[in-house]
Amino acid sequence: MSAYTELASYLRQSRVLASCQQLLSWDQETQMPHDAAELRAEQLSMLAGLAHRRDCADELGEMLERAGDEVGSGDEPEVASVREARRDFTRRKRIPAELMEERVRTTSLARQAWIESRAKNDFATFLPHFEHIVDIMRRFADALGFEDHPYDALVAEYEPGETAASLKELITPLQERSASLLGRILDSGGAIDASVLKRRYPTDAQEQFNRFGAEKLGFDFRRGRLDVTAHPFCSGQGPTDVRLTTRYDERNVADSYYSTLHEAGHGIYEQGLPEERYGSPLGDACSFGIHESQSRMWENHVARSRAYWTWLFPHVRERFPKASEGATAEEYYRANNAVAPSLIRVDADEITYDLHIAIRFGLEERLLSRELSAGDVPEAWNAEYQRLLRVTPPTDADGCLQDVHWSAGLFGYFPTYSLGNVYAAQLFAKADEDLGGVHAQFARGEFRPLKEWLRENIHRHGRRYRPRKLVELATGHKPTIEPMMTYLEAKFGDLYSI
Amino acid sequence: MSAYTELASYLRQSRVLASCQQLLSWDQETQMPHDAAELRAEQLSMLAGLAHRRDCADELGEMLERAGDEVGSGDEPEVASVREARRDFTRRKRIPAELMEERVRTTSLARQAWIESRAKNDFATFLPHFEHIVDIMRRFADALGFEDHPYDALVAEYEPGETAASLKELITPLQERSASLLGRILDSGGAIDASVLKRRYPTDAQEQFNRFGAEKLGFDFRRGRLDVTAHPFCSGQGPTDVRLTTRYDERNVADSYYSTLHEAGHGIYEQGLPEERYGSPLGDACSFGIHESQSRMWENHVARSRAYWTWLFPHVRERFPKASEGATAEEYYRANNAVAPSLIRVDADEITYDLHIAIRFGLEERLLSRELSAGDVPEAWNAEYQRLLRVTPPTDADGCLQDVHWSAGLFGYFPTYSLGNVYAAQLFAKADEDLGGVHAQFARGEFRPLKEWLRENIHRHGRRYRPRKLVELATGHKPTIEPMMTYLEAKFGDLYSI
Repeated sequence: MSAYTELASYLRQSRVLASCQQLLSWDQETQMPHDAAELRAEQLSMLAGLAHRRDCADELGEMLERAGDEVGSGDEPEVASVREARRDFTRRKRIPAELMEERVRTTSLARQAWIESRAKNDFATFLPHFEHIVDIMRRFADALGFEDHPYDALVAEYEPGETAASLKELITPLQERSASLLGRILDSGGAIDASVLKRRYPTDAQEQFNRFGAEKLGFDFRRGRLDVTAHPFCSGQGPTDVRLTTRYDERNVADSYYSTLHEAGHGIYEQGLPEERYGSPLGDACSFGIHESQSRMWENHVARSRAYWTWLFPHVRERFPKASEGATAEEYYRANNAVAPSLIRVDADEITYDLHIAIRFGLEERLLSRELSAGDVPEAWNAEYQRLLRVTPPTDADGCLQDVHWSAGLFGYFPTYSLGNVYAAQLFAKADEDLGGVHAQFARGEFRPLKEWLRENIHRHGRRYRPRKLVELATGHKPTIEPMMTYLEAKFGDLYSI
Repeated sequence: MSAYTELASYLRQSRVLASCQQLLSWDQETQMPHDAAELRAEQLSMLAGLAHRRDCADELGEMLERAGDEVGSGDEPEVASVREARRDFTRRKRIPAELMEERVRTTSLARQAWIESRAKNDFATFLPHFEHIVDIMRRFADALGFEDHPYDALVAEYEPGETAASLKELITPLQERSASLLGRILDSGGAIDASVLKRRYPTDAQEQFNRFGAEKLGFDFRRGRLDVTAHPFCSGQGPTDVRLTTRYDERNVADSYYSTLHEAGHGIYEQGLPEERYGSPLGDACSFGIHESQSRMWENHVARSRAYWTWLFPHVRERFPKASEGATAEEYYRANNAVAPSLIRVDADEITYDLHIAIRFGLEERLLSRELSAGDVPEAWNAEYQRLLRVTPPTDADGCLQDVHWSAGLFGYFPTYSLGNVYAAQLFAKADEDLGGVHAQFARGEFRPLKEWLRENIHRHGRRYRPRKLVELATGHKPTIEPMMTYLEAKFGDLYSI
């Protein structure tokens, strides 16, 4: 056996083990009996222990050395595979075991405290945990190492190649131009009537409609499922087993439908990763930003387009005859694209979404550099919301306690949402050009050409290229916010006649 | 840490790992997307490999030695725990790794061949696999060791303490007396009209009814679930996560309901195992026979009693107003106890069930001793069915190909079904005596006293005692078939006026 084959076999076993953990976590959210929580924690902890030993084994380090010597350097996929596997290994080995355990223990308690704190709207309950987590993540950054800013060490976990500075270069202008566009929309005085979405859409029909919508985009139900959870997610055990979740509210059909399509976008990516590379970095998703570009593209560029609604509307009429009575395709299109500054990130429209991200990114940076203390976050949060979105949370539950990320130590994660938006717009513009106008296809219910374009240009590469390089190879240009701004200005300029 | 604590901790980790395998298998049958079969096989195979290494580790052997020295001998639970764990370890170590792999490989192929063979009604397709499996199981018996008959080595896997001879001593009279009772019923010319059960019972209402029935018996849905599979089963990951399955047919309400209650009986046992002993043999079910005694007791002694139907009937009226129109409680009671010689074991009534078992037991014994060749099984099967049940299968699919067991190498398993019946009757009679007449309780929908009696006398002991000893401790008598025969003769004597 060659050194590379030996490594590939080891990594595949590790991936299979991780996929078992994923299944148990999915089951925990969707199927598990109420009283099984303790047993499930024990199961997950045991599998995590096994995985950790494999992932940090000296044996793996030696395999990586031998495989690296064997494949040498160059452009071959195998070189990229060893490079990425070695990167993962090196980063993991830098974290002392005690620090990792401290994080697991602390975030486990913090999650409970955060839930309680949010329910009671009492930031003080969460604060000591939050302080501890900021401290731990700062020590993580120190252990991982960085040149300019501790944030750099953490964001690299989600988006290889990015730093706080590189992100700011991309995102700060996006934030400024989004804020300016928002100002023009608000000043225009135009308002969209979204009341058609607040009518009663029966849950059973919604469920069928969601499956229909996801399947039409290209999600393969022979390789996946759709279930119900409080917070929608996508769990990909492998290309042949990808599980989506959504939630239902009879009075909020759009939340359920667009959550489903968003997760289906993640799912289509997972289903399109090269099966024969399963376990190798070449069979993994490229980054969180690229992943989000897929979900946001299907959700927004496709399913929030006027052409899509032209096609979808007759199906809405058929499936929800009562709720859709007297409405038009254009009315649905407009209602699903209404812009309004709001308090909650996950409910935000396409213009304001990145402002929510910018606020979190700025606060995280200052927390890690110790310019801002954890206790001062509520005040800083509210000031930023007033400055950028012209709204002030009435409570911390609607403010700095709304997201789960910080309680889990996920610092450096939020900017990948904005990267996803930026990449989605640039990739979509190129696909539209290459395919000779995709909107005409959407109006006919044809989504396969776009999916195939993504398979060819994004999915099949796995982690062979770093995110920005992948976007550049797919589009011929380094990533910029121009396609995103062009898209937003055209779409919302039309919608609000500005 | 004491040697015993160290052992307990090791065994608990092994049990947790096994519970992960169980969850993946349950998911495979109930949730898994169609195309994920290969990935699932890889996941299960990896976990099986990890489990096998743990279960056969020299380290475990040494721990067992040290713990054995520490606890010494006596009646304490810890002594029993080490004894049973050492028994498992010793048996496992006797199987050469290559033989185990040959079995896994062969039965995996044989399962496919069996499915195909049954579908095509072509025994020849299955025969080469069957021959190979008989040969492998004979070698298993040799590796495990036995005194009198190779069957002894295999039955010990399911029923510690039993041998072919000890089983025959118990089961042969049961078979003879059941056959004689069946003859008297058939000769009586009495017939029960079961047509009320063939009316249309809507699937949705059946599903709610099954949950209602299982919950009333005492199955705790906070610690379990009920789902749908082709073949009903119960999977207990631990007392807090026990999953039942059943199947639905609008024209066969009894199959679905009694399958559910049967599996709920298994589930109530699993939920009643001592949580604090999880992972130790003291936290495991005693044996397959004892397990089956629980399922058969709830299914037959409770839910096929006249008192039970007195209580249940109004609920049937309410839930199935159309199907139950004009029927009476007595009519349902009789319909659910109709006796008729049949071809298929899983559809058999309480009288003929053990005859189906006796036939399989006899054939297995002759196969292992090489008195019967695999190729002659269809002929021998049909001859036995004619002799004991007065029926002849029109096809092998309705004959020797009906059960999955042999394709999986499960020789020695069938007699545990009859042991279950025998133990159920003896335990039930004692519970009835101790509780001052349980039928009056059933008629009021009270099942908790019986469940508590089983918790106290059976469930809480885990594997502390061998099966026959456990029954003796619970009832004050060594197991005999007398309570079973008394029960059958009284019940069916009344039903058929003989």
